[in-house]
Amino acid sequence: MVETPRGNAVIGQSGGPTVVINQSLVGLVRAAAGVDAIENVYGARHGVKGILDEEFIDLGREDAATLDAVAATPAAGLGSVRKKPTEEECSRILDVFEAHDVRYFFYIGGNDSAETAHIVEGLAQEKGYDIRLFHVPKTIDNDLRVTDHCPGFGSAAKFVASAVMGDDLDNRSIQGIKIDVVMGRHAGFLTAATALARRHPDDGPHLIYVPEVAFDVERFLDDVGATVERIGRCVVAVSEGIHDADGELIVKSGEKDSHGNVQLSGSGALGDLLAARVRGRFGASTRVRADTFGYLQRSFPGFASEVDADEARRVGEFAVEAATSGDHASGSIALRRHDGPEYAVDCFVTPLDTVARVTKSLDPAFLNEAGNDVTDAWLDYVRPLAGALPVIGRFTGHPVEKRLGR
Amino acid sequence: MVETPRGNAVIGQSGGPTVVINQSLVGLVRAAAGVDAIENVYGARHGVKGILDEEFIDLGREDAATLDAVAATPAAGLGSVRKKPTEEECSRILDVFEAHDVRYFFYIGGNDSAETAHIVEGLAQEKGYDIRLFHVPKTIDNDLRVTDHCPGFGSAAKFVASAVMGDDLDNRSIQGIKIDVVMGRHAGFLTAATALARRHPDDGPHLIYVPEVAFDVERFLDDVGATVERIGRCVVAVSEGIHDADGELIVKSGEKDSHGNVQLSGSGALGDLLAARVRGRFGASTRVRADTFGYLQRSFPGFASEVDADEARRVGEFAVEAATSGDHASGSIALRRHDGPEYAVDCFVTPLDTVARVTKSLDPAFLNEAGNDVTDAWLDYVRPLAGALPVIGRFTGHPVEKRLGR
Repeated sequence: MVETPRGNAVIGQSGGPTVVINQSLVGLVRAAAGVDAIENVYGARHGVKGILDEEFIDLGREDAATLDAVAATPAAGLGSVRKKPTEEECSRILDVFEAHDVRYFFYIGGNDSAETAHIVEGLAQEKGYDIRLFHVPKTIDNDLRVTDHCPGFGSAAKFVASAVMGDDLDNRSIQGIKIDVVMGRHAGFLTAATALARRHPDDGPHLIYVPEVAFDVERFLDDVGATVERIGRCVVAVSEGIHDADGELIVKSGEKDSHGNVQLSGSGALGDLLAARVRGRFGASTRVRADTFGYLQRSFPGFASEVDADEARRVGEFAVEAATSGDHASGSIALRRHDGPEYAVDCFVTPLDTVARVTKSLDPAFLNEAGNDVTDAWLDYVRPLAGALPVIGRFTGHPVEKRLGR
Repeated sequence: MVETPRGNAVIGQSGGPTVVINQSLVGLVRAAAGVDAIENVYGARHGVKGILDEEFIDLGREDAATLDAVAATPAAGLGSVRKKPTEEECSRILDVFEAHDVRYFFYIGGNDSAETAHIVEGLAQEKGYDIRLFHVPKTIDNDLRVTDHCPGFGSAAKFVASAVMGDDLDNRSIQGIKIDVVMGRHAGFLTAATALARRHPDDGPHLIYVPEVAFDVERFLDDVGATVERIGRCVVAVSEGIHDADGELIVKSGEKDSHGNVQLSGSGALGDLLAARVRGRFGASTRVRADTFGYLQRSFPGFASEVDADEARRVGEFAVEAATSGDHASGSIALRRHDGPEYAVDCFVTPLDTVARVTKSLDPAFLNEAGNDVTDAWLDYVRPLAGALPVIGRFTGHPVEKRLGR
């Protein structure tokens, strides 16, 4: 048990947004309003950038209707940032917190945000400043350690599964080879989620390639050829971050952010490259198309997974509970899945350093031996997170006897 | 009045599918079941290709649940085709129709499909074969003449407006320059529909470029610069078919279909090219991203415009009514919008040759003088077609006074 300070709270959002990140934000705001230890709840504009610049808004003054509307709105309501504060900036963050009597800091983000909270925690301890620092998880990549899954992933999974479902129907209408590039630089969780699109044995995606398996272009072309041989067409889901056996990215671009991450999204380069290779193998007259799903995966409105929206809200609420319970001075909120056939989760607190820096990849048990598809264990894992997908129909197709022949 | 023959009906689907094309199909099937003159309703697999090969299925044997499910499913339930039959093939089509006692042919498609129906009609007249030939409109491009708008367009408009809405929120979170490439090779209707994404004066899309206006890269870069100057970021919607003052496409690829159309979709080339030009002007450190919305625009499931789905069903039902009324031997179904503030439409029949071949472009009254945005008249036209868009929220943002300053 630690003593619970009384003061103000700051909430920030960081990294690539999700469609339910504001559910966590509003969960925090609503829960904080019901807690005596928290006097005012401030929102920092654009994460640590807003803290450094003292750009705060008073979230306690937003009315209920606004909070409800923002909760259902994709992308960071406070603005986000891709910035890893320097040692000097972390020190400035503490100065700002002290000046505003901030005793609770909730940072909604991925592993980089957990790391930032961890660094600030170290400085606060050195300085003897009493503050509770909590990381609230979000990421469409689902690559945080400890937690069963990340809020934000389920909705992105629903989007990409639905997208491939529609795209596969389109490809069935006008047959050809279709390549769909899905977000995910190191982890293939989101690409693997496209497998939920399947309803019938001949439904796509017919091939799935993730960064966890070394990508070999010739083997990929063989796989495509075999699928076309079998059903006359082929829909492929591929992660933007696929690389060869030497770890070299199949596509590269020069831009890097301040965390050293290479820019892969917002470019059609990988899809176009793979489409060109397919044409090279199967001939220029082969109908080949490539789509890169891009930012819609993390921002498409009005299409969230209900389970995901609910859990994103809960991790926000639980963070306030954990921070004011006296049980933890800091931590990251994680989800634990219950055993048994009925899907259910609990929230718990895990130390910041168990989530910071290092990320998680797909369990090998989720991938088939050929490295071009997922297993049933994966489908069992991901199905409840994406929730209900669009219902689609197909004709039984009673044939009419030919009268002319050919 | 013409005499109404008794016999079988064939339905085909052609060209790029839409998310409501099967509403028209099921509208036709249901209406045909209630009409004495039509004995059996056959579906041709992959349009004229299925007719030439006598690949028919008996749609009268599909149960109600299947019809309902297929109606709500994107992409052509019968399969589609991009094929312009030769004179010889049109003759074979008539032979097949005669062999199967087909007296009603309903072809769901764009202007190319109307042309095919028109050619077959000419041959049937020469041959003295009594048949009703009706074109049922569909296209996400909205480029058919005569009709107020095309079934399929409203849902695609809802999709792209929602996509830009989410993307603009994402861009507001992590500021930068974002280019969204929208389908439309000759007509900018769909790209113009992204303007529905705007709720606040600073919402994107901030710039809209359509094929109806000659595209000048330097002017585009000036426009982007002015927007960034004003609000610190910029979201651009651009048609895949933009071209320069000489009519030269800004991006080109070699592939053409049998109608002579150049392939523009299924490639990220235009977005990547424009992004590179933006980086060239504003520096490599500028955050620039490009997404090409691709096939999701015409195939994304579970997100149709309700108005569009309803109208797609109605044009199918009306086609059966028109074909069996004795008033017309052939024609294309069109929509007429009622005058007045309340949105409503009627169906009517227009001759096939008023829809075949030549397509329609955006009315100049729908475009601003600078050629980089739409007018209010356009918004009034398109709003009821897309129907309800996702509701989004934004914080009022009561500022907290700074205590440290900088």
